[in-house]
Amino acid sequence: MTDGRHGVHQPRVGIVGGGQLARMLTHAGERLDLEIRVLAKPTDTSMVGHDPLVTVGDPDAPGVLEAFAADVDVVTFENELVDLEILRALEAQGVAVRPGAHVLAMSNKATQRRHLDSLSFPLPPFVVATEASHVEKFAAEHGWPLVVKSATGGYDGRGVHMVDDPAGLAAITFDGAEYVVEPKLDIELELAVLVARRPGGETATFPVVETVQRRGMCREVHAPAGVSPEIAGAARQVAEAIAVGIDAVGVLAIELFVVDGEVLINELAPRVHNSGHLTIEATDTSQFEQHLRAVADLPLGSTELRVPAATMVNLVGGETVGDETGIDPRDRLAEGMSAGAAAIHLYGKAPRPERKIGHVTACGPDRATAHRDATAVAAALMNDTSDTATSETRNGRTT
Amino acid sequence: MTDGRHGVHQPRVGIVGGGQLARMLTHAGERLDLEIRVLAKPTDTSMVGHDPLVTVGDPDAPGVLEAFAADVDVVTFENELVDLEILRALEAQGVAVRPGAHVLAMSNKATQRRHLDSLSFPLPPFVVATEASHVEKFAAEHGWPLVVKSATGGYDGRGVHMVDDPAGLAAITFDGAEYVVEPKLDIELELAVLVARRPGGETATFPVVETVQRRGMCREVHAPAGVSPEIAGAARQVAEAIAVGIDAVGVLAIELFVVDGEVLINELAPRVHNSGHLTIEATDTSQFEQHLRAVADLPLGSTELRVPAATMVNLVGGETVGDETGIDPRDRLAEGMSAGAAAIHLYGKAPRPERKIGHVTACGPDRATAHRDATAVAAALMNDTSDTATSETRNGRTT
Repeated sequence: MTDGRHGVHQPRVGIVGGGQLARMLTHAGERLDLEIRVLAKPTDTSMVGHDPLVTVGDPDAPGVLEAFAADVDVVTFENELVDLEILRALEAQGVAVRPGAHVLAMSNKATQRRHLDSLSFPLPPFVVATEASHVEKFAAEHGWPLVVKSATGGYDGRGVHMVDDPAGLAAITFDGAEYVVEPKLDIELELAVLVARRPGGETATFPVVETVQRRGMCREVHAPAGVSPEIAGAARQVAEAIAVGIDAVGVLAIELFVVDGEVLINELAPRVHNSGHLTIEATDTSQFEQHLRAVADLPLGSTELRVPAATMVNLVGGETVGDETGIDPRDRLAEGMSAGAAAIHLYGKAPRPERKIGHVTACGPDRATAHRDATAVAAALMNDTSDTATSETRNGRTT
Repeated sequence: MTDGRHGVHQPRVGIVGGGQLARMLTHAGERLDLEIRVLAKPTDTSMVGHDPLVTVGDPDAPGVLEAFAADVDVVTFENELVDLEILRALEAQGVAVRPGAHVLAMSNKATQRRHLDSLSFPLPPFVVATEASHVEKFAAEHGWPLVVKSATGGYDGRGVHMVDDPAGLAAITFDGAEYVVEPKLDIELELAVLVARRPGGETATFPVVETVQRRGMCREVHAPAGVSPEIAGAARQVAEAIAVGIDAVGVLAIELFVVDGEVLINELAPRVHNSGHLTIEATDTSQFEQHLRAVADLPLGSTELRVPAATMVNLVGGETVGDETGIDPRDRLAEGMSAGAAAIHLYGKAPRPERKIGHVTACGPDRATAHRDATAVAAALMNDTSDTATSETRNGRTT
C-alpha cells in the first residue's frame, strides 16, 4: 500500500525504544500523518501491528542506530538507555538528535545532581558515593536512614536502596560505580511537571500534577496537584528553568518533592513520562503529540486542562503463582468497563510482577470523583480487592 | 514480533473497509489490546503502517469476505457498501455479523424510509419513485421544488438532485432504480444522534449534536446542539426507539431535521459517523471505542460530555488546478498548529476535491470559543481565507 503522498511533508521522526511510550507516541503521530519509525528490541511487544514502522534491533549494537538514523530526519527516544557515545557520533555527523546527548547524559543521576547543583537549583542534600565510607561520612552530617540510588540503570524503584544504618550498607556492592546518597526525607507529597521545548527555545509547560508512589513505582497521578498556587508556581518555575538550563528539546519530566513547604528536585527524565499519561484525555494536547511537535520543530500546542480534574492509575503486573503469569487485564475488560467511567489503556504486554502493563485515566468534576472512577476501573481490571486499590494514598513513598 | 499473549482474551474484530473510520476504530481497539483486523481495498491509504492488521481485497469478490470472517470472531463495517447476500450467507453459517444484514439493508434509502414509516417514526413527506410521473404526482400534492435522492450509492451529497420544476427531471435517468422524493424543507437546523447498542439490548446514547452542511456534505458539528431540552429530548427519544425498532448492534447514527420546531428523520447510517468524531476528545468514551465495545459485546462506556462545548470541522480537499492536487494539510501543520487550540486528525489521504481528508476538533468553555478555534485551525490547514471558513453557518443545506 502506498499512502498517496506526493512528497515528504514533515520531518520523519525515528523513535528509539519500542515500549508503551513508543506506542502512544506512534498513535499521536499517526493522527497527524507524521511519518514515524520505531527502533524496537526483539522483546518489545507494544508495537505489534505496526510492523512496517518498526525496525527490530539493539540500538547499542554496531551500526544499528546509524542505519536507523539514516532513514529519518530526527532521532528521538522513548527511554534513556542509549549509548551516549553513539549519539555523540551521530550528532557529529549532523544528525538531528532530539533531545541531544548532553540532555540524555542527565539520565545518569550523579551527572544530573552535580549539574543541577552547579546551576543552583533546589536539591535535597546529597553526595555522590563510590564507597561505603562516603556514605558514612554523609550520615555523620545528615543522620540515618539514607536513600542510596544507583546513578545508572534504575527505574520504577529498581536500583534504590533504603539504608537504615551502617550495617545496611552491606547489601550494596561498591565496585567503583557511583551512587547518589540523600537523607530519607519527610516528604509531604510529590509533584511532577512536564515541559516541552522546541529547538529554538519555545516552551510549553503542562499543569503541575501530583504523583503517588508505592514501592518506588508511580501508582497514581492527579491533575491538578493538590497544592497551593505558590507551591505549584514554584514547581513550574523550577521546571521551566531546568529545561532552559540544560537546553532540553522535546518533553522533559521533572519530578519534585515537597518538603517543609518547599519544592526540591527529585529527578529528571528527558522524555515523555508516566506522570503525563493523563494528558491524553485531560489537556488540549497530549504529552505524546507535544513531544513529536517539539522534536519535529512544529509549534507547540495548548497545555490547558480541559476538565476540572483527572486521575491516572497504573496497571502493574501482580505476583505470579507457579506457572501463572498473574491477572491479565486483557481477560477482564468487561469487569473494568463495568466498574466506572475511565479510559483504559493497555500496552500489549504480558503481566509480569511489578511491570507496568497499562493505565486507566478518569476525568471528573472533582478529584474525588475522578479518583473513585480510576481506582475502581483499575482494581476491577486487576481483580484487586486490597485497600490500596481503592483508598487514596497521599504519599506511600519515602525516598 | 509476538504480542506476549498466552491466549485469546477478547473477540477478534474484523472491520470491513479501510478508510479513516477503520483507522480511528483501529486506534481505539489498540488502546484496549483488542485484536483488530481490517479488510481494505487496494486504493485505501488510511491504514498505511498497520499492514499486519490489514487484508487487501474486495469484499464483494467471491470468497474474500468469507476468508476474512474465518479469521475473526465478529465482522463489522466502517461503511455500508457491502453485498447483503454475502452477509446473509455468512449469518446463515453462524458468523457474528454486527450489525446484521437486516440493519445494513437500511442503507438503501427507499428501504429505510418505508421501514421507518411502517414503524410510524416522524419522517418528511416522501414517495419512492422509479419514473418521472411518480415525482410529478408527488409535486402535485406537495409543490416544487423537490429533493430527489438515489436510494443507493449516495453519500456526501452525491446522488442528490435538487429539482426546481418538471423540466429539472430531465437531469435524472429513470432506469428502474428507486429514488426517494421529498419536498425541499424549510430546515431550521440539523441534528445527529449516535446510539450504541449491544447484542443483548443494552444501549448508550451520545449527546445530541448539531450538524452544519454545505453542498450536501457535513462541514461542522457542534456539541451540545443549540436546541431546547424539548427538541434534544425528542431527538434522543426517536433515535433510541429506532435503534431498538431496527434491532441495531454497534453504533447507529441518526440524522434529523428540525422543521417547525419538530424533529423529522433525515437518514440513518449503521456505523460510526462523521457527526461523532468530536467524541474522541469531548466525551468519556469515543464513538469508535463504543462501537468496538458494542460489537464485541463488552459493557458500553459513559457518553457524558467532559467539556462544556466542542466543535468539529471537516478538512475537505479543494479544487485542483492543472496537475496540482490542491492544498495538502500535511504541508501546513505548522500553520494549523499556530492558529488555535484544536486536535488535528489527518487521514493519510491525498487531497482530492470534495474528499474528506481530515478533521479538527476544538473543546472550549463555550460554543463560540470552540468554534473559533476549530475553524481557525481548519482554515489555516487548508489555506482557506474564504468567509465560510470563519463565519458560523447555522444551516447551509437545503435538502
